[in-house]
Amino acid sequence: MIKQYLLAPGPTPIPPRVLLKMAEPIVHHRAPAFEKIMEEVREGLKYVFQTEREVLVFASSGTGAMEGAVSNFLKRGDKAICVRGGKFGERWAEICEQFGVIPVNIDVPYGKAVDPADVKKALDENPDVKAVYVQASETSTGVAHPVKEIADMVKERENTIIVVDAITALGVFDVPTDAWNLDIVVAGSQKAFMLPPGLAFAAVSEKAWKLAEESDLPKYYFDYRKEAKSIVKNQTAYTPAVSLLMGLCEVLRMMKEEGLENIFARHARLAKATREGVKALGLELFAPDSPSNAVTAVKVPEGIEGGKITKIIRDEYGVTIAGGQGSMKGKIFRIAHLGYADKFDVITAISALEMTLNRLGYPVEFGKGVGAAMKVLEEE
Amino acid sequence: MIKQYLLAPGPTPIPPRVLLKMAEPIVHHRAPAFEKIMEEVREGLKYVFQTEREVLVFASSGTGAMEGAVSNFLKRGDKAICVRGGKFGERWAEICEQFGVIPVNIDVPYGKAVDPADVKKALDENPDVKAVYVQASETSTGVAHPVKEIADMVKERENTIIVVDAITALGVFDVPTDAWNLDIVVAGSQKAFMLPPGLAFAAVSEKAWKLAEESDLPKYYFDYRKEAKSIVKNQTAYTPAVSLLMGLCEVLRMMKEEGLENIFARHARLAKATREGVKALGLELFAPDSPSNAVTAVKVPEGIEGGKITKIIRDEYGVTIAGGQGSMKGKIFRIAHLGYADKFDVITAISALEMTLNRLGYPVEFGKGVGAAMKVLEEE
Repeated sequence: MIKQYLLAPGPTPIPPRVLLKMAEPIVHHRAPAFEKIMEEVREGLKYVFQTEREVLVFASSGTGAMEGAVSNFLKRGDKAICVRGGKFGERWAEICEQFGVIPVNIDVPYGKAVDPADVKKALDENPDVKAVYVQASETSTGVAHPVKEIADMVKERENTIIVVDAITALGVFDVPTDAWNLDIVVAGSQKAFMLPPGLAFAAVSEKAWKLAEESDLPKYYFDYRKEAKSIVKNQTAYTPAVSLLMGLCEVLRMMKEEGLENIFARHARLAKATREGVKALGLELFAPDSPSNAVTAVKVPEGIEGGKITKIIRDEYGVTIAGGQGSMKGKIFRIAHLGYADKFDVITAISALEMTLNRLGYPVEFGKGVGAAMKVLEEE
Repeated sequence: MIKQYLLAPGPTPIPPRVLLKMAEPIVHHRAPAFEKIMEEVREGLKYVFQTEREVLVFASSGTGAMEGAVSNFLKRGDKAICVRGGKFGERWAEICEQFGVIPVNIDVPYGKAVDPADVKKALDENPDVKAVYVQASETSTGVAHPVKEIADMVKERENTIIVVDAITALGVFDVPTDAWNLDIVVAGSQKAFMLPPGLAFAAVSEKAWKLAEESDLPKYYFDYRKEAKSIVKNQTAYTPAVSLLMGLCEVLRMMKEEGLENIFARHARLAKATREGVKALGLELFAPDSPSNAVTAVKVPEGIEGGKITKIIRDEYGVTIAGGQGSMKGKIFRIAHLGYADKFDVITAISALEMTLNRLGYPVEFGKGVGAAMKVLEEE
């Protein structure tokens, strides 16, 4: 028996009380029992998104809501700035291209956050840009982008919206939808929401809805306006993922019980402990300047095969972390600390890493990383 | 306490062993444990679809795969025949219009199956038609369309494909994908697959893949070709609905244990018993000529308010059936008998209906409908 620990950046572990809630007999989605769930879900989502707006709910993974954040608001031939600093930034540009929108790409070196000055330059050079697409947390590199600074610039421009992929940011660190004037914020169920994948969310500003009126791109399943009309009636336009919504209702209760401030503080603590633990082992952070509190990306040390770290830590120790994606494959590994995560998940991750590296011939003084992590966990 | 019974055409009740499987700790979708599940799922789906092809899996409800069955195969300005005999037939035409495909609509009176001669006429008059979109089972009216007859005509035409929405047909009655030369067959998780909503499936023929090469319509999340490349590696292009796939793996085991022939016979028996029970109460079937074995649509008797039937049977007796949709609202009600359904679900439905109608002043001889249903259940 090897006990299993899931420490990858989504899906994240699901609290037992949520698993059990989803194991209850299913309810019909056009019946009062479901509408009661949706009513509570709507309120809870507003709380987590920090918004007065309705939050739309889709039966899809986050990418579906990202697609809708292009197809519902832009027109064929429109220009959009895409901050490309990793796999998910690139996804924004791919979606734009697929729909006939012209991406104005800001290519950011992997591991770095975008410089707001570069966004300003792109906005100034392309005054006709309709939208700026960016990640709050770029999961593939472990970077947090300066969303507020970008939002402040976009706010000044009447016909430009900011669209934030907050899939691994929402419920991890502070991304207040309304306070920062974020026009569209997209999230997904399998991250800080502690649920299985299969739900995507989107909050939309009045400024964005205005753009939607002129949009001529095709959309059917991800029709934001159709969903906006349904959600106020505690319904969805198409058959919703009922069991996940039953779980979401329970998750939102947990998040309210803990409180957003405590949730952010917990994630900050776990992230810092992970970073300090990793550094104490002589390893180098991949995104030292602007790390996301959702996931810590670490450079694979010289002379060690990156794929072996993720394989041994999983197969020999039962700890699932993530490797690098795309061109980062073999060069980094990623330890997640979001969602249903606490102190001993960090301790587990760092100690498993110590043992794994030792097996691979990397010089490790057992307990050194764990000790550094514990210091943070006790001090903060 | 009012014990609850779900007898609506989706979501359908979920077997306890499947609920428990989905309540197990979630696994990471880029790890061997998941790929093992997917390998079994692939085989199981081929069995239920009766195909040698790979069956694509989407994290969405069935409508998402329907959208993809347009956006991946057609070009802007292409013509497509849409059999419109209910809400879901109309959905095909809506999707086509949204994507710039010109629908050639065959409007079929609600409650009737399409006449294959009308499809032949439309095909002859529009030799450039690229696709015929049809439901195997039109859930909104309880009608089964003559899919085989249409497929036989389409087979002869080199550049035309037949696309079948089999969302409430697959696993209910015989719709053999390969044997009938169905080019695209779409299904969803919350019907005969006995799962919560959130998964959609699609099987695609070589003839359809050829069309896909020329398609110029935008698609990203529902990119069939991208999914086809992933599925053979036991993966999906985007984050899959992992917990539902864990449940699907279990469901497919159950379906193999029972065997397709027995599954079809069970549904035929339950459907016939429901129809006979309803008729014995003096009620009129809405689709007497070509009823689907998934759901029985019944005309609301003169002088009774349709909405009251579905409300009283649910609120007073705990039995959730479905009303009519769109223009059928208040005119019909629908009793489902698909998925995890057996004899006493029919008995429950008919006896609850007897008591409900009696309350509403409709003359009922208690036990008459139930007796007629029992006769079928014991004879068949």
